[in-house]
Amino acid sequence: MDSSLTNDFHPLEPTDFSQESKKVIDFIANYYTNVEKYPVLSQVKPGYLKTLLPDSAPVSSESLEDILNDITTSIMPGITHWQSPNFFAYFPATTSTAGFLGEMLCSGFNLGETNTSPAAAELETLVMDWMAQMLELPRSFLSSGNGSGVLQLSTSEAMVCTLATAREKVLREIGYEGISRLVVYASDQTHSSLQKCVELVGIPPSNFRCLPTTYSGGFSLTPRTLEDAIEKDIESGLVPFYVCATVGTTGCGAVDPVEELGKVARKYNLWFHIDAAYGGSACICPEFRHYLDGVEHANSFSMSPHKWFLTYVDCCCLWVQNPDNSLMEGLPTISPEYLMNDDDDSESKDMEDYKDWQIASNKRFLAIKLWVVIRRHGLATLRFHIRSDVKLASYFESLVAKDNRFEVVVPRKFALVCFRLKSSHSKEDKNQNQELNKKLLLEVNKSGHAFMIHAVVDGVYFIRCAIGSTLTQECHVVSLWKLIQEKATLVLLNSSN
Amino acid sequence: MDSSLTNDFHPLEPTDFSQESKKVIDFIANYYTNVEKYPVLSQVKPGYLKTLLPDSAPVSSESLEDILNDITTSIMPGITHWQSPNFFAYFPATTSTAGFLGEMLCSGFNLGETNTSPAAAELETLVMDWMAQMLELPRSFLSSGNGSGVLQLSTSEAMVCTLATAREKVLREIGYEGISRLVVYASDQTHSSLQKCVELVGIPPSNFRCLPTTYSGGFSLTPRTLEDAIEKDIESGLVPFYVCATVGTTGCGAVDPVEELGKVARKYNLWFHIDAAYGGSACICPEFRHYLDGVEHANSFSMSPHKWFLTYVDCCCLWVQNPDNSLMEGLPTISPEYLMNDDDDSESKDMEDYKDWQIASNKRFLAIKLWVVIRRHGLATLRFHIRSDVKLASYFESLVAKDNRFEVVVPRKFALVCFRLKSSHSKEDKNQNQELNKKLLLEVNKSGHAFMIHAVVDGVYFIRCAIGSTLTQECHVVSLWKLIQEKATLVLLNSSN
Repeated sequence: MDSSLTNDFHPLEPTDFSQESKKVIDFIANYYTNVEKYPVLSQVKPGYLKTLLPDSAPVSSESLEDILNDITTSIMPGITHWQSPNFFAYFPATTSTAGFLGEMLCSGFNLGETNTSPAAAELETLVMDWMAQMLELPRSFLSSGNGSGVLQLSTSEAMVCTLATAREKVLREIGYEGISRLVVYASDQTHSSLQKCVELVGIPPSNFRCLPTTYSGGFSLTPRTLEDAIEKDIESGLVPFYVCATVGTTGCGAVDPVEELGKVARKYNLWFHIDAAYGGSACICPEFRHYLDGVEHANSFSMSPHKWFLTYVDCCCLWVQNPDNSLMEGLPTISPEYLMNDDDDSESKDMEDYKDWQIASNKRFLAIKLWVVIRRHGLATLRFHIRSDVKLASYFESLVAKDNRFEVVVPRKFALVCFRLKSSHSKEDKNQNQELNKKLLLEVNKSGHAFMIHAVVDGVYFIRCAIGSTLTQECHVVSLWKLIQEKATLVLLNSSN
Repeated sequence: MDSSLTNDFHPLEPTDFSQESKKVIDFIANYYTNVEKYPVLSQVKPGYLKTLLPDSAPVSSESLEDILNDITTSIMPGITHWQSPNFFAYFPATTSTAGFLGEMLCSGFNLGETNTSPAAAELETLVMDWMAQMLELPRSFLSSGNGSGVLQLSTSEAMVCTLATAREKVLREIGYEGISRLVVYASDQTHSSLQKCVELVGIPPSNFRCLPTTYSGGFSLTPRTLEDAIEKDIESGLVPFYVCATVGTTGCGAVDPVEELGKVARKYNLWFHIDAAYGGSACICPEFRHYLDGVEHANSFSMSPHKWFLTYVDCCCLWVQNPDNSLMEGLPTISPEYLMNDDDDSESKDMEDYKDWQIASNKRFLAIKLWVVIRRHGLATLRFHIRSDVKLASYFESLVAKDNRFEVVVPRKFALVCFRLKSSHSKEDKNQNQELNKKLLLEVNKSGHAFMIHAVVDGVYFIRCAIGSTLTQECHVVSLWKLIQEKATLVLLNSSN
C-alpha cells in the first residue's frame, strides 16, 4: 500500500508531546502565579466572544502559540477565576499540584472500559476504601463488608443512580404503574439538582416534597417535619420511597440531623441518601466527624473531593451500604458479547464491574486522581488543609463580629460565613436591608478584587463568604474584609442621602 | 490570628506545580514511547492489586517518585493499553498531543458553574457550531438556527437527556400515569447502554423493543421492521415515543438507514435520536457524509470525539434540532437564588445556560479540549486522520481476502474489519467454527502482541479488528496479520489432530 498517507501523520509523537505539553504547563503555572491580578468575576458582556473568534473551524493547523494567545486575549477575560485566592463564591473548587498530576495520569492512560483493566477497577475499590476509612464509615460501606464504593462524575450522578436503585426496589413490589405514586423528600435547603434528578428518573414533579426549615432550627430538616409529610402522603395513597439529607447545604452550610432522619427513614423503609458534597471532606477531622453520626442508617452516602479535597473536577465518591441494597440492582447490566472476557466466569468476584454502578458504560481513570491526591498529601496534611480553611473562616467571622454594622446570619459550621449589614427591627426595613446588602455585594464584585454570592433563606437575604480556595491566604481574607468595610461605608452613605 | 497554620501549606505553589508536572509529562511521554513493548491486554489475575498496595491511606506525604514507581510496578501491569499501536479492540480511544494540551487547559482553569464564565459557555456554542458545520448538519441544529448543541460526558448522558426530554413532551399530553405505556425502539445492534438509559428514566424494561436485524440486511434496522413494531404497540394501547438509529454499531459497524427511519419516526411523531458515537467522526469527510443523509428528520444527534476524533475521554457532542424540541424542556431548570447573576434578566439570551442541558449542574471546561484539537489540526488534517485509518483498515481487509482460510464476515463501512476463519457449510460445523475462532482470538490476545475482541451477530461469531489507535502505523497492521496467520496455522493444526 501507499504508506506515505499514514507515516506522515504523528499526532502523538512523544517528543512533540513532551515539548508542547511543557509549554502548556508553563502557561498554567504562569496563570496560577498571576491569577490574583485578574478581576475575579468575569466582566465581559455575554455574547462578547463571537466577535473575537472565527465562526468556522480552520482548514489548516494553527500554532500552539496562536492558540495560547487567543486564550489569553479572548478567553481569559470571559472567565470567572475559580482558582483566584479572592474567589469566595459558591463553594471553592479546590485544586493542588497533586491533583493536577493525578489529572494528567488519568488522561495519559486514557483507558476505555474499566473492566479491561483490573488495575483501574481495583484501584477504585482501594481508594474508595481509603476514603471510607478516613471518614470512619461503618465497615458495611467498605469492600471488606461487601459495600459498594464507586467514583462518579457528580453529585447528580450519585442522585440519579441511587434514586433509580431505590425506585426499582419499590417497583418490583408494587408494579411499574406505581411509579407515579412514589414520593421523594428533602429540605428546602437541599441542592436543587435533586429535583432535576427526581424528574430524570421518572418521578412526577408533584411528588417531590421540598420540606420547610427555619432560622431557629438552623435550617436543618427536623425528623418531625419529615415524619408528618410521610404520614400525610401515605394517607393519600402515595408511596414514600427516598429521603435525602445534606451535610453542608449550599445556601448556608446547614447540616441535617443524620441520626434522627435516618431513624425515620428506617421506620418507613425509605431509601436514605446523605449528600455531603461539601461537608463530607471536613469529616476526615475528628472534630467534624460527629456530623456523620447515624450514617449507619443510610443506604447511600456521597461526597465530592472536587469541592474541598484538592482534587480537580470531576470526582464524586458514592458508597452504598451492604446488605440493604446493591447499587443499580434491578437495572440492566451492560454485558453484550463484545464486553465478555474469557475469564469472566471464574474471576468476576475479585474485581468490581464499575460500569454497572454508573450512568455511562465507560469512565476516565478517576481512581488514580484521588489516589495521587491522598498519597502526595497524606491524611495529616489533608486534615491540616481543612483546619486552616476553617481557621481562616473563623477569623473572618471574628472580623465581622467586631464591626457593629454587620451581623453573622447563620451559625457557621464549616468554612462558609453567612453575614450581612444589620437590619433594623422594623418590618418595613426588610426590603431596604436586602437592597443595601445587594448593593454592597454588587460593589464588592464589581471591584474585581473579590467575588462572593448571596443566598436567601427563610426570606433573609445575606452574603456568603466561602473560604477555602486553594491559593487563599490570610492576607486575602484581610483584604476582603477591608474591601467589604470600604464598600459598606460607601453604600450606607449613599443610602442615607 | 496565628497565621503559621495557613502560611505553611502551599499545595498549588507555581514552581512546584511546574516542576512536578513536567516530571509527569516526561513519565507519560516515556509511556507513549514504550507502550508498544507492553502486553496490550492486561495479563494480571483480577484481585492482584490488593496484595501490592497498602489497604489504608498514608498519614504523611509520599514522594512523587514513590508514586510513579508504584504506578510502573503495580498499576501498569494491570492496565490494558488502549494507547498501544497494537490495540485493535472495541473502538479506538484516540488521543493526540493537541488533545492532551486541551485536557490540561480544561483542568487548569478548573471552572465551576459554566454560567459564571461567558467564555466557557460561548466557546461551547462556538465549538458545537464548528463541529455541526464540519458534519454539514442542517442550520436548525446550529446556534444560528436556534438549535441546541451541548458537550456531554458520554453517549449515555445524551441518551438520558433526550429520552427524558421526549418523555416529558409526551407525558404533558397523556399525563404522568402514562409513563408505563411509553415504548422505545432500537435495533438489536444498538449499544446496550440504551436499554440501561431507558430504565434510568423510568420506562418499564418490558417496553424496550430490541428489533431484529439480519445478515442479508447488513445488520441495519429496516423501516418496515420499525413500522410493524410501532403499529403492533399502538394496537396494544401502548405509546411509541422514541427511536434510536446508530451510525456505526459497536458489534460490526453497521449503519441504520437514517432517512427512512426518520420518515417513520415523523409519521408516528416519535422522537428520533441518531447515535453516531463512532461513525460520526468519519462524516467530516464528504465520502462518508451520505450516512447522515436524512439527519434533518432527527430530533437529536450525538457523536463522541473521544472515540475517533483525537480527543481524550470525556467528550460527547449532542445537538437537538429547533424548532421540534428544546433539550430538557419540561425538566426543572436549576436556578436557586445563589446561582442568579444580577444581570440574568437582561443578558440571558446571549449565552446558553448549559447546566440545564445536562445531568450535572456543573461540568469541566470541555469546550476548550475540543477547540484545541480542531485548531491544532485543522479540518484538512482531521480528514486525513480518518482517511488514513480507513485506508489501513482497507489494507488489512485485503490481507484477509488474500488468505483463503479466512473471510470477511460483514461488509466494512469505516475502519472496523469483521473477519473469521472460514466456516465449512455443514450446520454441524457452526459450533466447531466458533471454537476455532475463539481459540485463534485467545492465542492472539495471549501473545501480548495485539488485542482484539469478538462479536456475535445473527448467531455468527467473528473477530473484530478495529483500526485507528493513534499510534498505529502500517507496520503494526502488517505484524498483526502475520501474528494472526501464525496463530491460525497453529490452531488449525491442533484442531485437525
